[in-house]
Formats: sequence, C-alpha cells, structure tokens
Amino acid sequence: VQDYADAHDFFFPLDLGARGSCTIGGNLATNAGGNRVIRYGMIRDMTLGVEAVLADGTIIDSRNKTIKNNTGYDLKQLFIGSEGTLGVITGAVLRLFAKPRSQSVAYCALPDYAAVMRFLHFAQARLGGTLSAFEALWASAYRLVLERATNVKPPLPDAHAFYVLIESLGGDPESDTAHFQAMLEEAAGEGWVADAVIAKSAGEVQALWAVRDGIPEALFTLRPILNYDISVPLGEMDRIAHRVRERLDARFPGHRTMEFGHIGDGNLHISTHIGAAGKAQQPAVDEIIYSLTEAVGGAISAEHGIGFSRRPYLGKSRSDEEIALMRALKAALDPGNILKPGRVIAIDGT
Amino acid sequence: VQDYADAHDFFFPLDLGARGSCTIGGNLATNAGGNRVIRYGMIRDMTLGVEAVLADGTIIDSRNKTIKNNTGYDLKQLFIGSEGTLGVITGAVLRLFAKPRSQSVAYCALPDYAAVMRFLHFAQARLGGTLSAFEALWASAYRLVLERATNVKPPLPDAHAFYVLIESLGGDPESDTAHFQAMLEEAAGEGWVADAVIAKSAGEVQALWAVRDGIPEALFTLRPILNYDISVPLGEMDRIAHRVRERLDARFPGHRTMEFGHIGDGNLHISTHIGAAGKAQQPAVDEIIYSLTEAVGGAISAEHGIGFSRRPYLGKSRSDEEIALMRALKAALDPGNILKPGRVIAIDGT
Repeated sequence: VQDYADAHDFFFPLDLGARGSCTIGGNLATNAGGNRVIRYGMIRDMTLGVEAVLADGTIIDSRNKTIKNNTGYDLKQLFIGSEGTLGVITGAVLRLFAKPRSQSVAYCALPDYAAVMRFLHFAQARLGGTLSAFEALWASAYRLVLERATNVKPPLPDAHAFYVLIESLGGDPESDTAHFQAMLEEAAGEGWVADAVIAKSAGEVQALWAVRDGIPEALFTLRPILNYDISVPLGEMDRIAHRVRERLDARFPGHRTMEFGHIGDGNLHISTHIGAAGKAQQPAVDEIIYSLTEAVGGAISAEHGIGFSRRPYLGKSRSDEEIALMRALKAALDPGNILKPGRVIAIDGT
Repeated sequence: VQDYADAHDFFFPLDLGARGSCTIGGNLATNAGGNRVIRYGMIRDMTLGVEAVLADGTIIDSRNKTIKNNTGYDLKQLFIGSEGTLGVITGAVLRLFAKPRSQSVAYCALPDYAAVMRFLHFAQARLGGTLSAFEALWASAYRLVLERATNVKPPLPDAHAFYVLIESLGGDPESDTAHFQAMLEEAAGEGWVADAVIAKSAGEVQALWAVRDGIPEALFTLRPILNYDISVPLGEMDRIAHRVRERLDARFPGHRTMEFGHIGDGNLHISTHIGAAGKAQQPAVDEIIYSLTEAVGGAISAEHGIGFSRRPYLGKSRSDEEIALMRALKAALDPGNILKPGRVIAIDGT
C-alpha cells in the first residue's frame, strides 16, 4: 500500500517494523499502530470502510469511501481491532494522504526522562502538525541495538540516558529544514537535548530509522525473549519502567531488559530476557508488568492485541461490565463461537 | 471545552456553528464534525474513552485515557454516533492537542470548481500537516450571507463562482505566515485563486470566519428552509450540486438554493427554500437529493445523523445487510427498545 500510494503521488502513513511481511487484513484485525501514530493515528483512523463476512456467511459491505458518514452505526469499528472474532475482513477502503514534500529526521540524546517530556511537548508545539514520529529508546535498548543489530551505525555515543528519533513531514523543503534545525537548537539551548545528529540525505534518514528498526532483529538474538506492549500515562512511563526493573532485579537477577517505545502515544515496549527458562517464568513477569500497568489505569496491550496469551489479563485493563458487553457482542454476532474461538474473550470454556 | 483547553495552553479542535450552545454529550452522540475535520477528524477521532449507561442500567466505564488501547473491543465506538440508541453517554475523556502558535486565514475567490479542487490538493501538499480548514461557499451561499447575515463585511466582490476560507494552524508565527502567503501567491499565479484577502490581525481572522459562521443566521431568515448534509466523492460534488439545482428548477421554479460545505472532507451542505409550503414538499426534495447521493455511493448524512427524519432514507446509503446488523446490535444492547425508540433504525414498528 505504501509503494502503490507513493507511485501515485500519495502517502499511506501506517508504518511498522513488519512492513513488507504483514498483511492489510492482519493490520486491520489488530488495529495496527507503529511509528507515525502521533500524527496519523492507528489504522482505525485511516480506514474509511471495510467489507467483512459474518459467522453466518452474511457479507457486510461497508466499503464506505467518504471521510464523513454518519448514516447509522459505524459498523467498520466492530471489525477493526477485534482480531477476527466478530467477522472476517475481506476488503477495505484505506485513506491516503497528501505526499509530504519534506522529511526531516534527527537522532537525539537526552539526559533524563524529564528532558524527554519537555522535548516532546516543545516539539509538538513548535513543529505544529508536521511532527510525525517521536520514538524513544532507553539506553538499555540503544546499547542492545548497537551490540546486536546488523547494518546499524551508532549515530551518537552510548553514554546518554535516552535517545529519541524525531521526524517531521512537511510541505516546504527549504523552510521546513531550517525550522526543524532551529527547533533542535532551541531544545539544545534549553538543555533538553544533549547531543543530536540531523540526517542530510535520504541515505542518512534511512540510517537513523535503521537504529529504531534494528530493535526486533537485536531482540531476536536474545532468545527466549518476553515482549510487552503497554500504554501508560506519559508522566508515569519512566517510573513504571524503573519499577518493572526493580522487581525483575529482585526476582530474576541477571535479566537483561530493554525499554523503548512510541513515546508520543504513551506506548512503552518492554522486552526482557531472563535466561534460558524464560518462557516458563512468563506468568510471573506478566504479573509484574500488568499489575503495574493496572495500577495507573493503563492498557496491557497498546497495539499488539489480546489474542490468547494476554486473555487472562484482560481484566487488568477492562472492567467486568466491559468484558460482559464484549461477550454480548460476540454472542450477538457469532453465537456458535466459530470465529477465532478463544481469542480476546473466553466463551463457553474456550 | 475549547475555553478550558485554551486557558491551560492546550487546544481542543472540534469547532462548529453550534459552539457555545451544543453539549459534549450531544456532540458525541451524533459524532459531530464541523470546521476542522480536514486535520483533526470528527469528535470520534478526538475521544479516548466514554462512560455510558446501558438500557439495563449497567454502567460501562470505558473512560480510557491512553491514545493506544487494543485491549479487546473498542466499546466507545458503539456509543459515539449512535444517537443515544445503544446507551446514554454520561462521561468522556477528550483528547487535547498542542496549542497552535500561529493562525493564518485567507478568504479566496475562485473561478470554477476545477480550480477549487486544484487549490485544495495544492494546499494539502504545500501546507503539509498545518492545513486546518478548507471551507467552500458556492456563489449562491456567499451572496445570501452578504445579503442577510448581520455583522458580516464582504471580504471580496460577489462576482466569482466560488469562495474558500482556508486556514493553517502552525508552530512558528514568522515562517508560517510567509509560507502561507507564498502558497497563496503560487495558487494565484496558477490561476486557481482569482482574488484573495489574508487576515492581518485576530480581528480580521474573526471577520473572515464570520462570513462562514453567518450561514446559519442567513438561512434562518429564509424560512421554511430545508437543509441537507451529504458526503459525496470530491470530484462529483459540483456536478451533483448542479443536478440538484436542475431538478429543483424543473419541479420548484422560484426556489432559492445555497450550496456550501466542508469541501476538504467531501461534505456538501445544500439548503433550499422552495416557498411557504416548503415543509410539505420535503419528501420530494429528499428524494431528489438522496437519490443523486445514492447514485454516487455517497452518504445521506455526513455529520448531522439520521434521527427520525432521515430514517426512511437510510437504505440509500446502507445495504440491507448493514441495516440488519445495526438491528442485531440494537437488539443485543437494548432488547426492550427503550433508548430513543424510532431513531436511526425502526424496531418493531416504532
């Protein structure tokens, strides 16, 4: 979709590490997020309509093509993000955007989390609607990428506490570049940004994004690895990362844990390697991370969904009443429980 | 909400003619749109969570506070835009945005609809993410406002075919103003913009918006007035406006009809005064406008909703299968049909 849009002078902003291998239906069924949610939202926000097949074989053709459509219930919302449990998505109308004329990317080092917050708010105000990514790596994740990802050149020394890839997509190459640089200089002057490198070519843009994109490859070398994907209030994020680390230190000394995420969206990824027997200990790690998430009213899945493995913890992010309503929807649309039984919510002992 | 956000150095972008008198719950129940959908979406897109009471008294507290939350079904979508028929919205978490640091507004005259389209696409590309409104008035609507709205000063002569209010909200006052002006000059050089006035002060910004905001007041003087709110493919919009006018000419000679809309969103408003007996003739006018909408796969309600009066025409924008699924949802959530019976879809003869 990205390539097709690009060839027709448009832009499809959904972008995630699985680009090239994930499917459109899978992205829709899981309401995929990724790198540019801060500006363009998740795929739910860039979908005008879907076609889905219900459990009884009925084809619901809601391939709406208009941006505004308030004619009755917005049925596509039932199918997007419900992981195939309410219907099988067989078609979609995706929204394209004007192709950006400029892309400014910088990799920044920051001294502490307070600086990350100030830099984010400053960039949101100064870059206006052009801010398109604000991806943070705690030093733990940055060091792992430098150590284990191939084809990654360190853009900055690894002596800092936080690293942020910031991107702006705008409409005027000359003035956007100057404005982006001035914004970074001001942030440096305030002490929020300790060091930074700005991409000067398309190749350098790609090299900076490669540091972010190298995370999955680097994590894959640390098997078994346990991956978490939580949403928490922005102001609480680093405190939660610290508390997770404290509890893992106490319970699993020698663990190796990396924190990174789509900070602008309040989305924190935590990945931990607790040794060869990691998978067997997963329930204990789940409990640590999901309980801390619950305590601040966060979401145990920001973008990866519930599936089977997180189903036991759904109650940490959703009330009994919410889960009962989900069950009522499932019963209304799939009374025989034939669509992805056992995913998201349990029905009749599945 | 706008005032509260502003006082705390944030921005709540939902803005519509009913500002100051509409309610948050009403905006949510109807999925309100308005003037800045082109950049920020409808209220659905700026709502993180809702609390709603079901027909059986169950309180569904889905007051999610995170931008990304893929923990099970996105229940708020059931209540937003369903006009109170699936639950009573009693609370909401709204998303605020960074407060813009610059506001550039111009009022432009354009020679024809092709120029409106070219200007829109050009502005989307050149203003990047800062384009925040693109409101068009056909000459018919512009003349009515000048003639009948109080406190409106004509920004431009009324000899042109189309008028567009264009707004950009950005992060850097100096460079944004220069960039906005350069964009307009380029559009004028291409012949798309025949004449334009740029606001030079907050007072002038308000004066230009007053021309757009004066429409409801001007229409109100033309009672009885029939108002329509359709979504159609952008490329078809002027053709449909013309065909509506032709059919009204044939059936109701002497009618006075105005076209205007949130063009960037594909949303066309048509208002017509067909004489003192207008209300009695409404079904005939409905049929003209909704049939033309149906023929291009448009929506008979872009933002106003279905309610009672548009219910007979729901089938022009939705298939039998879609309406049956809406009924199944209604039956699952409100089996006794006690919530706003008769609105949106008919149940058991209501």
